[in-house]
Amino acid sequence: MSSVLSERISRLQSSPVREILRAAGSGGLLSLAGGLPAEGTFPNFPGFPGGWTQYGTTEGELPLREEISKLLSGRGLDCPADRILVLNGSQQGLDLAAKLFVDRGTSVLCESPTYLAALQVFRLFGAELHGVPIGPQGPDPEALAMAVRKSSARLAYIVPTYQNPTGTVWSEAARVAMAHCADDEGIAVLEDDPYAEIGFGPTPPAPICSRIRRSSWIYLGSFSKSFVPGLRLGFLAASPDLIGHLERLKQAADLHSNRLSQALVLRDLRDPDRPSRIEGLRSEYRSRRDSFHESLKRHFPSAKWRRPEGGLFFWARLSRKLDLRDVFRSALEEGVAFLPGEHCHPGEAEPGWARLNFSHCSPDEADRALEILARMVAKAESGD
Amino acid sequence: MSSVLSERISRLQSSPVREILRAAGSGGLLSLAGGLPAEGTFPNFPGFPGGWTQYGTTEGELPLREEISKLLSGRGLDCPADRILVLNGSQQGLDLAAKLFVDRGTSVLCESPTYLAALQVFRLFGAELHGVPIGPQGPDPEALAMAVRKSSARLAYIVPTYQNPTGTVWSEAARVAMAHCADDEGIAVLEDDPYAEIGFGPTPPAPICSRIRRSSWIYLGSFSKSFVPGLRLGFLAASPDLIGHLERLKQAADLHSNRLSQALVLRDLRDPDRPSRIEGLRSEYRSRRDSFHESLKRHFPSAKWRRPEGGLFFWARLSRKLDLRDVFRSALEEGVAFLPGEHCHPGEAEPGWARLNFSHCSPDEADRALEILARMVAKAESGD
Repeated sequence: MSSVLSERISRLQSSPVREILRAAGSGGLLSLAGGLPAEGTFPNFPGFPGGWTQYGTTEGELPLREEISKLLSGRGLDCPADRILVLNGSQQGLDLAAKLFVDRGTSVLCESPTYLAALQVFRLFGAELHGVPIGPQGPDPEALAMAVRKSSARLAYIVPTYQNPTGTVWSEAARVAMAHCADDEGIAVLEDDPYAEIGFGPTPPAPICSRIRRSSWIYLGSFSKSFVPGLRLGFLAASPDLIGHLERLKQAADLHSNRLSQALVLRDLRDPDRPSRIEGLRSEYRSRRDSFHESLKRHFPSAKWRRPEGGLFFWARLSRKLDLRDVFRSALEEGVAFLPGEHCHPGEAEPGWARLNFSHCSPDEADRALEILARMVAKAESGD
Repeated sequence: MSSVLSERISRLQSSPVREILRAAGSGGLLSLAGGLPAEGTFPNFPGFPGGWTQYGTTEGELPLREEISKLLSGRGLDCPADRILVLNGSQQGLDLAAKLFVDRGTSVLCESPTYLAALQVFRLFGAELHGVPIGPQGPDPEALAMAVRKSSARLAYIVPTYQNPTGTVWSEAARVAMAHCADDEGIAVLEDDPYAEIGFGPTPPAPICSRIRRSSWIYLGSFSKSFVPGLRLGFLAASPDLIGHLERLKQAADLHSNRLSQALVLRDLRDPDRPSRIEGLRSEYRSRRDSFHESLKRHFPSAKWRRPEGGLFFWARLSRKLDLRDVFRSALEEGVAFLPGEHCHPGEAEPGWARLNFSHCSPDEADRALEILARMVAKAESGD
């Protein structure tokens, strides 16, 4: 077993019943083993393929995993269906990865700033988080290599494409450096890629996981941004040494993901109109981003930000001195919510940054929200 | 904070974004905070109420939780909707409870035998499991009290109604004893009740959680047996001191449960024909149980079992000397699967018991399976 795994993995057992169900899937078995209800008792629903109302397999439906495998090939990541696991949203991948890697005191490397719900999960499991600063092209390759060595991290959690919260796309050089670090130092990589299909500019470089040769890796994907969040469906792809552990962890966590959502996502992935639907989505979000950019210029003429090439957020420095957590409450009283950037850092934060979502509000609403926010920041800066 | 909680709970933080989303649910807020996609971009599905395609709340849809609250009242457990959490199947409740209570070395009391996937989860988190033997009426009240004191357990995991695997219904006296033990010794109770609606005899006594006055408790319920397993939806109800922690743990695990499944379960719970559908289900399973009982008598004339009054299993001693794990492989080669009872014990097991599901195979298939199994047991006993 790889030395990067958590202590609890030595106690991870597969359920004999689930193993039997899997065997039974090949047909002909008379099974008194599981606790399966009689299929004749289930009501019918539109969109549910025959038999999918029954309990399913932990790894998820094979046809869906095959479509996901094709989707990943298109992104430059070759991974067969048997190393793909369907998840109850990609957030579940963070929970499984934390269980797989993190004991109390385990060192985990991440970007600073990063996705705050990932910080929440890793902290829950007792990780010591080490942040690597993110520039316009991702981390500085030498600083990254140094941080990996100094932190003795088991795991690097990264969002290299349309990063949350900064929108950054890691350069080719930063990606290569991360992959080399992983292979050379034996650190595992958890690459979170929920916005892969929400890009407005040139195609981003291939995932970092596609460049790893020896080390362990997990790649997380989502259908919440490109399809329907309420269906709560995501997936992971993983290196051969990890996939079995991840499947058993998923089994222990919730047996399997709901099959109706799987059926609907499968239908979408096979829909010949999907590429044009995704293009429409990009075009809509590109236009919202551009409006938001204009509104920011109008209401925050002296603030600092970069226009993101994908994802759902602007990362903007709205003030050079304020801790925005103090502005948060007054803005909320005026009916405006935003995310103070201080929450997104594993450690010390430069003050005054905010994560601002541009996808949900209409352009008019967003403009009004930014106008109010600018007023609240100005008021706080003047010490009023 | 209660002293029964795990060490990791001291590090459990709520996501500020989720808190904001909850506030935004009350309307009128201009939110730049979350990462919500634009609702106009979602395709429509039949059965999805307006707006439910978007990300949802961690706790689950309020109308659904209100219906679950009514369902629980009918079982004798009064719990308001704000102490109910919708889960990705009741199995997820075991994962959340393990996170909430179990550090490495934490003592957990359970029945012996018990639900094997619960053993799997608690072992993963490092629990020391202490089994209490289960008789025809549940545990002996004095032995139970003694075990609670001797084990210094933080948590008791129990399935007191149509127990898995034995089918046992704990008596009134055993239930009262468990509740008193919990209140007197400060042990938390995790009551798993997936088969509540799958009873064939008299109405079982009210849940143990309804009798607890001071101690902490969690009650788990499922829609997999009474509705559709493929929808993967269950729920928990909890004492006031635990519900906030459980909601944050769910948030960290997968943000929320899929909303299409929630919509379908809600529609079923409100369906005026539901009681007659459930009555039909019971009648179908009662008849399968009775056929199975006859088949057992026919093929295992000298075996020992009790005819279960609910649930999906017979628990039968098929041999007085064999470890049935050794019969498992030969039976599988003949096309029959069953669960060797040895898997269901936290510690030492009396040999020769099997858990036999009667709900999934047709009566004819079950008869054929038992005939083959009897042959395999006889062959193994004769040492052939």
